[in-house]
This record gives sequence, structure tokens and C-alpha cells, in this order.
Amino acid sequence: MRQVALIGIGKTAFGAFGDRSLPSLAAEAVGLALSDAGIGPSSVEAFYLGNFAGPSFTGQNHLAPYIAGMAGFAGIPCTRFENACASGGSAFFHGWQSVAAGLCDCAVVAGVEKMTSRNTAQVTEILAGAGDMAGEGQAGATFPALFAMIARRHMFEFGTKREHLAAVAVKNHANGARNPLAHMRKTITLEQALAGKLVAEPLTVYDCSLISDGAAAVVIVPVSHAPRYRSSKFARVLAAVQSSDTVPLDSKPDITTFSAVTRAANQAYAQAGIGPRDVHLAEVHDCFTIAEIVASEDLGFTPKGDGGPFAAAGCTAMGGVIPINTSGGLKSKGHPVGATGVGQLCDLVQQLRGEAGDRQVAKHQIGLAQNLGGSGGTCVITILEAA
Amino acid sequence: MRQVALIGIGKTAFGAFGDRSLPSLAAEAVGLALSDAGIGPSSVEAFYLGNFAGPSFTGQNHLAPYIAGMAGFAGIPCTRFENACASGGSAFFHGWQSVAAGLCDCAVVAGVEKMTSRNTAQVTEILAGAGDMAGEGQAGATFPALFAMIARRHMFEFGTKREHLAAVAVKNHANGARNPLAHMRKTITLEQALAGKLVAEPLTVYDCSLISDGAAAVVIVPVSHAPRYRSSKFARVLAAVQSSDTVPLDSKPDITTFSAVTRAANQAYAQAGIGPRDVHLAEVHDCFTIAEIVASEDLGFTPKGDGGPFAAAGCTAMGGVIPINTSGGLKSKGHPVGATGVGQLCDLVQQLRGEAGDRQVAKHQIGLAQNLGGSGGTCVITILEAA
Repeated sequence: MRQVALIGIGKTAFGAFGDRSLPSLAAEAVGLALSDAGIGPSSVEAFYLGNFAGPSFTGQNHLAPYIAGMAGFAGIPCTRFENACASGGSAFFHGWQSVAAGLCDCAVVAGVEKMTSRNTAQVTEILAGAGDMAGEGQAGATFPALFAMIARRHMFEFGTKREHLAAVAVKNHANGARNPLAHMRKTITLEQALAGKLVAEPLTVYDCSLISDGAAAVVIVPVSHAPRYRSSKFARVLAAVQSSDTVPLDSKPDITTFSAVTRAANQAYAQAGIGPRDVHLAEVHDCFTIAEIVASEDLGFTPKGDGGPFAAAGCTAMGGVIPINTSGGLKSKGHPVGATGVGQLCDLVQQLRGEAGDRQVAKHQIGLAQNLGGSGGTCVITILEAA
Repeated sequence: MRQVALIGIGKTAFGAFGDRSLPSLAAEAVGLALSDAGIGPSSVEAFYLGNFAGPSFTGQNHLAPYIAGMAGFAGIPCTRFENACASGGSAFFHGWQSVAAGLCDCAVVAGVEKMTSRNTAQVTEILAGAGDMAGEGQAGATFPALFAMIARRHMFEFGTKREHLAAVAVKNHANGARNPLAHMRKTITLEQALAGKLVAEPLTVYDCSLISDGAAAVVIVPVSHAPRYRSSKFARVLAAVQSSDTVPLDSKPDITTFSAVTRAANQAYAQAGIGPRDVHLAEVHDCFTIAEIVASEDLGFTPKGDGGPFAAAGCTAMGGVIPINTSGGLKSKGHPVGATGVGQLCDLVQQLRGEAGDRQVAKHQIGLAQNLGGSGGTCVITILEAA
């Protein structure tokens, strides 16, 4: 297997863009990534697109060649990858495999979602498709309800409190407020978070990620080719792992941990030859605040059950033990589902290059991205190192 | 790159199965393929699922881990691949890459679609998503209209006649009538085909493929491992190629040929080290009869423009120069979109093994499958050899 380098990144702003089409968002991100890498579309040998539900949100399907045509690389293999909220991560995993295995020498991985063209009820139903529609969906349990159950069980098992959940929201809003591409750039107080409108007890609106439009893209090549493209500053992939679990929440023996995450994490740390203490910063999948708490445990940043106090003590804040979601996370940066996994990588690379401005962390040699699908049916973990 | 073997195949019947869920169809096909290979689910290291529009047809998304959980292989990478009607072929292409490149030693590739849960108008709209919704879709041009334009142009350029189109339908119905798993098992006469109800002039109902439910699956391993699993009768992959083109029909300089097909065919023949004359039989993507005629030209079985007379002369029938769609094709066997590309491979392997019963062709050493997405935005070509 060859070592793989991310030599270009590109992101649109995340937000509600009523005047933008899904393909135009993706094409913009791809263009930015190509510019960042300093290459033209004719250098690209394969196109990997992460998208969860473009057809349901916009009616347009067959999105990979559609967007490829706009980006200028028709003729090459172009494929859409779907794994719920981990669609972007899954596209990256397969693109990475292709370059690492020598199947191609230059690939573009993009992720995109356009969600605000539907009303909230429609969005909620489309998102519910990432769960078990025959069981959970029939029972009316959409994702806030599923993660509320996870939160309640975490509270019961480990004494996690609403204040712990709220601390995650406060931190992510503080980070996102300083991210010019974030969807919701406002700080909130702990009191505001605790007083938020209930969505599914104990989760308030401040515990839930956003419904966003947006796209992100990266350009990957073998590390040995990287000097041909950029004279400096790329990121090396130390590990990329995709794992899965059953989809229905009631099929899992323990809902306070995701086996797809722990399995992927173990494999990723082994692949990278490092442990969780060696990671300097992480972008994790905070679709709900409880998901960030569970992730901080499942990724080994803190012992099982301790994720709440760990967050509340500031250990995951800027300057903490392990800064998590310096981008603002899905909570504040936004969560255009298919874009999220690729966007996390762009945010990490920005930190690894030392180009994160007033969000820049001091230690930024190794970063980890964790992208979750549904309530743990899929997980993709990527570990990057500054080169 | 390692040589890859198909050691197991499994297909459900194609048809209208109101009482069956999409996941249950896929799980059935996977189970049949595992049984055929003589292995259990714990041997499988990765799961590749082709599905075009399960979420739009059924509401359920995140289908790869969902079906994997039912099939007994949660924990491994499970991904859904979408490339319109070439979704199944695209899943196979990526699975093949993975085994060929040594990324895994045993993969299952499945394809599935459940279309009959929606009414015809809804199905037509969902299918239109494989085209250009902002242009073609806005203009009301659904797929029968797009392929009708292709047919009209082919008639204008090359003198192709409605009798040529009808000959393809008659042949495919004759073949499908002898396929126990086909959706529409009835023979038709040339007169019936010509008198069919018009859908989009010059295409009648007999020129259009079917709206079907169904699933198919294959098990792939390195050829060097094949003896561990089966003592005999597997198929070797001589070539697997995926190519693309722009999606909107009006972006193509010539609509009587698909550049994604000619490009993929050239690459596939080079990869296999053979030419079109060496192919003993083919399963091609007859979403419409004109598509089979164009495919027979683009694949080099007959000169450009000659596909109509070639079919009408019986050259593509059982016992002809190159038997095409001995399964009955999408026209008679059915076209559960995401299943089609994988189903073609199952049908070829059955022929290559000499197990096609009264549809068995005499020369069955080398078979080719051509799977088309939309009006040529994607093409996957696979060439198999009996081992």
C-alpha cells in the first residue's frame, strides 16, 4: 500500500442557500480543491462523491457524472457513495483505497448535500431513512428521539447531566463563531443552552445539529507524487478505516457505545501506529451533543462514561487536552449530511497546515476525523499527519 | 493486480412482489450467492451494494449496513453505490478493484431495487432523476422520450426501422419466456410488437423495459483462492471498466453512440487482451430496444449504423453470431434498476458454467456484460471467462 497525501482542500460555506443548486455547490468545492492543489481537472483519474439523499432532497440522482461533467472530468470513473451521514467519509475511504492500492494516481473526493429545499418535516422524514424505517420509522422515532434515548441511557448508566450536553453546545458554538464558513456563527451561554426549546427530552434545539446546504472536496495523490503538485504543506493519511454495525438501535446490546466506532478506532490506531493520546485534535460527528460525548469515549480520549465531565471541564475546548471540533462541529458549522465527512478532513488539513487563523491549535501534527452514519450503522475514521 | 473469480451467484426472481421488502429481496440474493459459493457470511470481508433509488421508492436509506445486518456480515465495510441504472455494475467494479488490488480476499457484491411500491407516474419521475432534471426534467422529457430521440436520430442517420427495434423485442421476449426468473415470460410476434401502444414515438410498450422488483448477488475472491471454495466451475474476470460522460443528452455531440460505452469497451478489450469477435455471448443494457441496437454497435459486434439489420437478421439471437441477452434482457427479464448490473453477471456466469438449461448457448467460454447509467452518463463493462 502506498502512502496517500491530501494536496488540496476546498469547501463552500455551510448554510441555507436557496439560490444554489446541489451540483453547483459540489462543483464549487471541487474547483476550490483543484485550485488549492494547483492542478486542472484533466489530472484527475477518478471521482468519488459522497451524498446521502440528493434525489430525495432535490429530485436529481446520478449525481457523480452530473457533477463531474460540470467540474470538467467526464470520461473517468465517477461514483456516488451513500452511507447515511457517513457518506462523505465513505467516499473518502474508497478514494483513499484506490490511491493507496495503486489503482489511480490522482483522485478527487467530494461530499455534498442540499437540504433546505424541503421543509423541516420533509427533512426529518428523509433523515429518518438513515435509521430503521420498518421499526423506528413506523414507531415515529426520528433521529432526535433515537439520540435522546442514547442520552437518557448514558445519563442512567454514567450520571451524565444536561449541563454536560450543554457544555458541548457552548464550546462548539464558540468555535463555530470564529469559523467564517460556519452556518451558525453565534456564541451561546450555558444558561441559554439549558433553556433551549425541547426537541426530544433531554435534547433541546441546542443539542441538535443544523439542516444545511454545502459541499467539500479534497484532492489525493500518492505521497511520493506530492512534491510534483505542491512544494509544501500537505497532509499524509496515517489511517483510513470504515466499519459497520446493524442499523436498528434496538439490535444493539449497548446503546451508550457504537461498536462500529470502537472497531474502526482500534483498527485506525493500529494502522497509524499511534494511540488516542498521540492525537492533537479531532473533528467528531456531533450530530447531537450526546454523540460527541460518546465519540470522545469510543475514540479513547477519555474513559467510558467520563465524556460528559471531560467536556464540561474544558478538556475538549481550544487549549484543552484534545481540542474537538475546532471548526464548530455539525452543531455550529452545520451538517449538510453528505458533505460532513469530507468537510471534517478539510477542517483538519487547515489545522495541520497551521492555517486555521484564530481557531488554530498549538499542537497540530496529528488530527483525527470520525464520521458516523445513522445511529452507528456506519463509521469512518481517518487519521491525518502534517507533512 | 490479482485475477478475480466469481465463485457464487444468487438471484431472486424479477417481478412485482408487493409483499416483499427491498432489504428482504437483497438478503435473499446474498444468501443464495453464499450458498452457491459454499461459504458462510463470516468469510465476507466487504459488502458492495448497488442501488439506484431505494430511498425514493421505499423511504429506507443507509441500505448497505441495513442489508448487511440481515445477511449476517455487520462489522465489515458496507457501502451503497449509485450510478443510476449502472449502480449494480458500479458496485461490482469497486468490489472487483478491491479484490484485484489485494484490499480484501472475499467480497459480496449485490444489487437491488424495489420499484412497484410506487405508481407508474411516481416511478417515471424517480427514474427521470437519472437524467438532467434541471433541463430534460423541466422540459418534461422522461427516459422514454430521451431514448425516442435517440431512436429517431438513429433512424435518420442510418435508416434504422421500427421493424429493427421490434425484432429486438421479439428476440428478448423469446429468450425471457424460457427464463424461470424473468418478469414477463411471454413470447410476442413481430406484428404484436409493431402494433404496441405508443409510449414515445417511435417507441411502443414493447420497446421499453419493465418496472420490476428484484435482487442479485455475486461472491468474488482471488482466482488463486478459488479452489479453496469450489472444486470447479467458476468465472474469471478478464476485464472490469467503468467510464462516464456528461449527463444531459443535449451536451453530447452525437446521440447515436455513447462515448462512455465506446471508451469502456476499448479499455475492457485491451484489459482482456481480446476483441469483440472473441466474445461468445453478451448481456447488454436494453432499457429500450434502441439501446440494445446502439450497444451492439458501440461494443463492436457490428459496424456503426448496422445494429438494426444485424438484430433483424437474427445475428443476436440464440444460435446467432453473438447471442445477446439470452436471459431475456431488461425487456423481458425485468429491470429492477440497481439489481440489473449484478444480475447480468449472474446470467453470464450461468451460461459460462453451462447451466442455462434450454437457453444454453453452444459457445460459452467468454461473456461480456454492458451496464448503462441514464442516457450514457455511466457505463460499466465486465468481461468474464469460464474457468
